[in-house]
Amino acid sequence: MTREPDRVVVLSGGVGGARFAAGMAMVVPPRALTVIVNVGDDFEPFGLRVCPDLDTVCYTLAGLENPETGWGRRDETWHALETIETLGGPTWFRLGDRDLGLHLERTRRLREGQSLSRVTLDLCRALGVDVHVLPATDDPVRTWVHTDQGWLPFQEYFVRHRWQPRVLGLTYRGAAEARPAAGVLEALREADLVFLAPSNPWLSLDPILAIPGVRDALRPQRAVAVSPFIGGQAVKGPAAKIAHELGLLASPLGLARYYQDILRGLVIDQVDAALAPRITHETGVRVYITDTWMRGPEGRARVAQSAWMFARALARA
Amino acid sequence: MTREPDRVVVLSGGVGGARFAAGMAMVVPPRALTVIVNVGDDFEPFGLRVCPDLDTVCYTLAGLENPETGWGRRDETWHALETIETLGGPTWFRLGDRDLGLHLERTRRLREGQSLSRVTLDLCRALGVDVHVLPATDDPVRTWVHTDQGWLPFQEYFVRHRWQPRVLGLTYRGAAEARPAAGVLEALREADLVFLAPSNPWLSLDPILAIPGVRDALRPQRAVAVSPFIGGQAVKGPAAKIAHELGLLASPLGLARYYQDILRGLVIDQVDAALAPRITHETGVRVYITDTWMRGPEGRARVAQSAWMFARALARA
Repeated sequence: MTREPDRVVVLSGGVGGARFAAGMAMVVPPRALTVIVNVGDDFEPFGLRVCPDLDTVCYTLAGLENPETGWGRRDETWHALETIETLGGPTWFRLGDRDLGLHLERTRRLREGQSLSRVTLDLCRALGVDVHVLPATDDPVRTWVHTDQGWLPFQEYFVRHRWQPRVLGLTYRGAAEARPAAGVLEALREADLVFLAPSNPWLSLDPILAIPGVRDALRPQRAVAVSPFIGGQAVKGPAAKIAHELGLLASPLGLARYYQDILRGLVIDQVDAALAPRITHETGVRVYITDTWMRGPEGRARVAQSAWMFARALARA
Repeated sequence: MTREPDRVVVLSGGVGGARFAAGMAMVVPPRALTVIVNVGDDFEPFGLRVCPDLDTVCYTLAGLENPETGWGRRDETWHALETIETLGGPTWFRLGDRDLGLHLERTRRLREGQSLSRVTLDLCRALGVDVHVLPATDDPVRTWVHTDQGWLPFQEYFVRHRWQPRVLGLTYRGAAEARPAAGVLEALREADLVFLAPSNPWLSLDPILAIPGVRDALRPQRAVAVSPFIGGQAVKGPAAKIAHELGLLASPLGLARYYQDILRGLVIDQVDAALAPRITHETGVRVYITDTWMRGPEGRARVAQSAWMFARALARA
């Protein structure tokens, strides 16, 4: 008699989440894995629908990601963007030629009336990805950042202004009216293990959790997060900077406090080992200490496997 | 006292018209030249606004055209299209990467509310084109082809079905309600010389002439056409095939009959010299006989110069 593999869900933003998801796809059978991805960063440059986090997850799972940047594709060319520059158009969002092909085809299918979740599954399959990659919602949810320079749409804040403005607050426009994409709630309810990837809590995880029904479907006793904070810093991006600006701790302790009602466990880096007793004492969240840097495919698999073993142990405890 | 140069207008479709216009830009000062271009071929693949004839004219005048195909850009790459193919999307319309940059930037500006004529002038200037390139109209005009396989939008007929279906008739949807783009009627009224380029009468010239006001603004005594027919064949494309299917002559005589009310003169190829007396006798259109093949830049300039000298002579007669 063959035992069914654990059904695993990962909530993910872009680069860090994508690498963790790719690691998890080496630990559990890809078809047992569902990655629910933030769409708050989506935007429409040149009339195209661009989904930065979905694309990074899809490219990373397909092994097509650019290893230097973490986003975009490897072996990329930039001829369309060079033309746009010649013509005096905006080039602050870096659209590569191969990447553009995906945006064009996605836009075409969406204009035909297909849902984003349907299109995402089909495009991932075409790139050889067997993992279920789902947008958190098919409805428009857009992260806006309240800054000392006023309200900015996410990509203006993140790419154009290189996340330098001071963050005063965030809102996820459309989230309150959005419905989870088909399969999202089912995957969460039926999951044996749920992971919050080492993604930015405010820019990547919260826009997923803000969609009505998602938090309730996530069963805390099966949920484990991997801290994106190591020694007070984020591995990549503005998570630590935003934590400070919001008056929160840029550390696993801050993360445990922030998500304590939806987490059973937290994987933290060895440099933060001293925080472990306080985290568990104060929040009740259990801690696993390991090296959380995901360098190369081996690093991804190692971190994912640690998180998986820890989560299984907790779920059976 | 310097004499103002002749103001010259060329009505143009794609490849043949673009080459003739480029020749004319070597004969008269580029700023004295206005090219009014067919938009009946325009379409919206992937949500982008693509204007094949405008682009061919612009690229040819800028010296960026692909010399083998006549359309698209030289030194082109196809990485976006390769991705679309991998993803199972439609690839029958060949969008190159550099070419895509122009479609993206045009689409962005149109979505901002700029007119096609404004955008076209700006993009041409950015590519170094001093000739005034104008779409016939900023309004949507779309050529539909009635064929033995039913009504087909132009690009389906032309590219996807490689103009193989039998043509029963044509219509220019939207033409009756369209207004000429700013500058079109003025250019025609003020022109010292007007040329109908060696373009397809039914697919390129008629969709321009069908826009209310254009025919009336064109003064026949100053208008000369260059025959796209040589020895019963079109240099490129389906003009001869369509002429037969519509029951018309695929020859300079057929062209002179078809446009006799708006033409003073017609430039025909030397292989059709024997038709000259009959053309003038039957239609009143005067004929100039020369080698009309436009091989290379020299060929374009030679044909344009012949047409220009002939038209000047007629206008002064």
